[in-house]
Amino acid sequence: MKRIGIVDMGSGTARLVVYDFVAGQWFKLTDEIRESVRLGEGFAATGKLSDAAAARALDAIKLYSDYAKATKLGKLTVIATSAVREAANSKDFLRKLGGFDLEFQVLSGEDEARYGVLAVANSFQVSSAWVMDLGGGSAQISRLENRLFMGGQAFPLGYVRLTEQFLEGQKTSDAEVRRLEKFVQGQLERTITSMRRDTAPLIAMGGTIRNLARAVQKLENYPLDVLHGFELKQQQLEDLTERLLALPVSERGSIAGLHPDRADAILAGALVYRTVLRETATKSLLISGQGVREGAFYKEFLPRVPHLLPEVRIFSVQNLFNHYAQEAKHTAHVRKLSKQLFMALEPIHGYGAVDALLLDAAAYLHDIGMAVSYHDHHKHGAYLVLNTQMPGLSHREQILLALLVQYHRKGEPKLGAYKRILESDDETRLLRLAACLRLAEFLERSRSGRVENLEIKISKDTVTVQLLASETPRVELWEAAKQSDLFRKAFGRTLMLESHELQRGGTQEKRRTNAGGKTKRKKH
Amino acid sequence: MKRIGIVDMGSGTARLVVYDFVAGQWFKLTDEIRESVRLGEGFAATGKLSDAAAARALDAIKLYSDYAKATKLGKLTVIATSAVREAANSKDFLRKLGGFDLEFQVLSGEDEARYGVLAVANSFQVSSAWVMDLGGGSAQISRLENRLFMGGQAFPLGYVRLTEQFLEGQKTSDAEVRRLEKFVQGQLERTITSMRRDTAPLIAMGGTIRNLARAVQKLENYPLDVLHGFELKQQQLEDLTERLLALPVSERGSIAGLHPDRADAILAGALVYRTVLRETATKSLLISGQGVREGAFYKEFLPRVPHLLPEVRIFSVQNLFNHYAQEAKHTAHVRKLSKQLFMALEPIHGYGAVDALLLDAAAYLHDIGMAVSYHDHHKHGAYLVLNTQMPGLSHREQILLALLVQYHRKGEPKLGAYKRILESDDETRLLRLAACLRLAEFLERSRSGRVENLEIKISKDTVTVQLLASETPRVELWEAAKQSDLFRKAFGRTLMLESHELQRGGTQEKRRTNAGGKTKRKKH
Repeated sequence: MKRIGIVDMGSGTARLVVYDFVAGQWFKLTDEIRESVRLGEGFAATGKLSDAAAARALDAIKLYSDYAKATKLGKLTVIATSAVREAANSKDFLRKLGGFDLEFQVLSGEDEARYGVLAVANSFQVSSAWVMDLGGGSAQISRLENRLFMGGQAFPLGYVRLTEQFLEGQKTSDAEVRRLEKFVQGQLERTITSMRRDTAPLIAMGGTIRNLARAVQKLENYPLDVLHGFELKQQQLEDLTERLLALPVSERGSIAGLHPDRADAILAGALVYRTVLRETATKSLLISGQGVREGAFYKEFLPRVPHLLPEVRIFSVQNLFNHYAQEAKHTAHVRKLSKQLFMALEPIHGYGAVDALLLDAAAYLHDIGMAVSYHDHHKHGAYLVLNTQMPGLSHREQILLALLVQYHRKGEPKLGAYKRILESDDETRLLRLAACLRLAEFLERSRSGRVENLEIKISKDTVTVQLLASETPRVELWEAAKQSDLFRKAFGRTLMLESHELQRGGTQEKRRTNAGGKTKRKKH
Repeated sequence: MKRIGIVDMGSGTARLVVYDFVAGQWFKLTDEIRESVRLGEGFAATGKLSDAAAARALDAIKLYSDYAKATKLGKLTVIATSAVREAANSKDFLRKLGGFDLEFQVLSGEDEARYGVLAVANSFQVSSAWVMDLGGGSAQISRLENRLFMGGQAFPLGYVRLTEQFLEGQKTSDAEVRRLEKFVQGQLERTITSMRRDTAPLIAMGGTIRNLARAVQKLENYPLDVLHGFELKQQQLEDLTERLLALPVSERGSIAGLHPDRADAILAGALVYRTVLRETATKSLLISGQGVREGAFYKEFLPRVPHLLPEVRIFSVQNLFNHYAQEAKHTAHVRKLSKQLFMALEPIHGYGAVDALLLDAAAYLHDIGMAVSYHDHHKHGAYLVLNTQMPGLSHREQILLALLVQYHRKGEPKLGAYKRILESDDETRLLRLAACLRLAEFLERSRSGRVENLEIKISKDTVTVQLLASETPRVELWEAAKQSDLFRKAFGRTLMLESHELQRGGTQEKRRTNAGGKTKRKKH
């Protein structure tokens, strides 16, 4: 296992992140120190780092170095972006860093864009996208194609810079807004033309858009407390921008969800995004919770060019599983049995590859809640899935996955508060996938893998599941039979369970579950 | 590490519980299989186990044995109570168990009472209590004194038995209720006299009272989803009993929180408890989530007579900590520093031993949420504390503990939805204890233990905390200084932080935090 510390020295905030990881296998964020440094403050007027800003940045660097030393973290990688890149006096600043054990990288605008794109390519299940990153000093817009960076550029449109340039007063006038918008339009003219011509989902990163999205989530009482993958609609951004414009700067922080030390400069960022969405006629954008520092991390985590995870969604599920050590054999067996059920029942449900993947992910993660406690581990598991980024999954998929985990052993599968962000047939989908998962779980009730395989036959009124095992799996027959009501509700057929003893051959115990959930047994 | 399987073969339900444990150190429930066996069904009329009931019990035993074999659990301990103890034909039943690898114990009424009392003595911070356990066949009432069993007795007042004896119809008449109550009064006459004379808290266990309490929690939207330690008030039980009486049996299951397979026999139990509370003029009882099977478990877990944990509350915190492996050194250091702060600030806050213990528990558990994820680990930690039994803690203490964990690093400490079950000065208590904990956490920000000790001086307007360390603890000074606003709010004084270098001696860095939270530094 390795540990790495990366400092993202932005023009607005500085942040140290610490990861534990095994290259290519798994990673976990283990610490984070954020400082509101505003390195870009005053830059718009002078083109220089101000003495005060440089001193604050130096303080933060001292702090991070001290932390790294005390925690034996080794050499820190520090990534500096727009402010340091562009300041006329950045050499003076860099000289002061000589005494620290740092790898200090001043990223070019294109490299900054590349790092952002790398984060998107490793945290979204997309092959093409427009990627936009708006920080304190600059905004990058890039094109992702076949999961690769196909070009991108930094523009002088950071929120600190634009605020100083256009929005200095307590109240913002229409004239100020128009001037700012005109400047943005001028800067982005060619890029907007490309975006209109060559459409693809827009994925946005950086503290500004995350914070705007958080405010929208709060306002609408959004049922999932995760930003990564959130779809922010144009209308929502328009409305929030209007609210910001109506308030004096000092009161903008009162909007629920806005970070106090961002509130006074967030309007500039909102106006840039509003302009981009309006000009490109884009109806929504997706929030990325990962950005430049995650891009830098992926270069370490996946050392081989082009630094890409083979499959984002699958890695995401595996990575979460690896955070909570569970019984690997039982998990693998439930995956196997649920897959057999899903495939055999395909003529009834008609679901495809994405649903299969969802069920498999749920089988993979169904027991992670045991890391909390046995009691209610189905609920704890859902909590764990709902309270983390699940890169590669849409919010709808993340919620369905959580609900499958929640209903893997008891309860009547329901969408509940999540219904409003799911699709109309997801109630049925949840029911059917949960029925497969739960049957698989109880066919492996003794966690011993003794039901080696299933043979499944479908008729008009019944589904017969034959359990192939080397001894009569009594617990499994008994417990699985209790799921007959759920099974009937999901598939409209009576579940019949039979056990077939392998090797000794011939000895069979059949258990028929009828509509009332009672059981009959026959011995042969 | 050992594993043990215990089967509680009650007259109503049978349940297998599986524990992982290291004797005397820690334990964890890892599996549970519950079956609604109703072994006592028909007993009231015939004094015998019916063939159907015996067959169901035998099925459950086969099932558990099969599970034990498949999971290599070894010999199961089966505890049988009232039905098997009293049935005229129990020898026939026991003979059928000959082929299984079981340790089958038929408990006497007194032993059953003893096991229940042992569970209470190891899961409540009490030295004296009345303990009541109501199952399907019998009810036990016992006396706990100096944490020891001082006598107890089983009465033929189980819910299955009383239902068959008194409440057979769909609707329950006043006359039926009166007859049942008269029978209960007759049976308990001497016990009730003792309970009136020799008062002590009443602690109740068993599925019936747990389920009644769950229904009350649902009805009142109780903010904590834990039964152990819940205080059920007489009036709440009276109201719920009236609701049950007003409904036909078939509709009682519609009351939110009642378990469907208990709903038809729960009234009898409710009437027994109602009678006891009325007759003894007891205003409330405490729910125990632990009972006979936990009593049996404690005999294995604490092999030395009298099978008692040295200190319930402390064990409870340690046991939870042990479920989530965290950095032991950092935890120990935060405990040490928070204790120093608490003790030094005693002249201001005036809190005593119980509050000290609460703060220490919070320091112990503050990072357990890291087992979920680094992001929001303060919230996850609170979730973990709120979603488990915390034996020895009242619900108020459990909630304060969770809130301290939640606010150990950020946010403004608030009681929120829990206010209604806390005390009027708990808002201030939370603020002050959270201020101590958070300061300790940030004085150990680098998790390296380098701030070895604190020297704390209180004056009229300031509290000066001197950090004794072998090198200037820059991160700690910086991060702790950010807590000055919280500190002022909690203690009405300005926090001043100074570092004093040990060994090299003399070199000092002082950081004064003033009201605005800005910092000044002096170098000497």
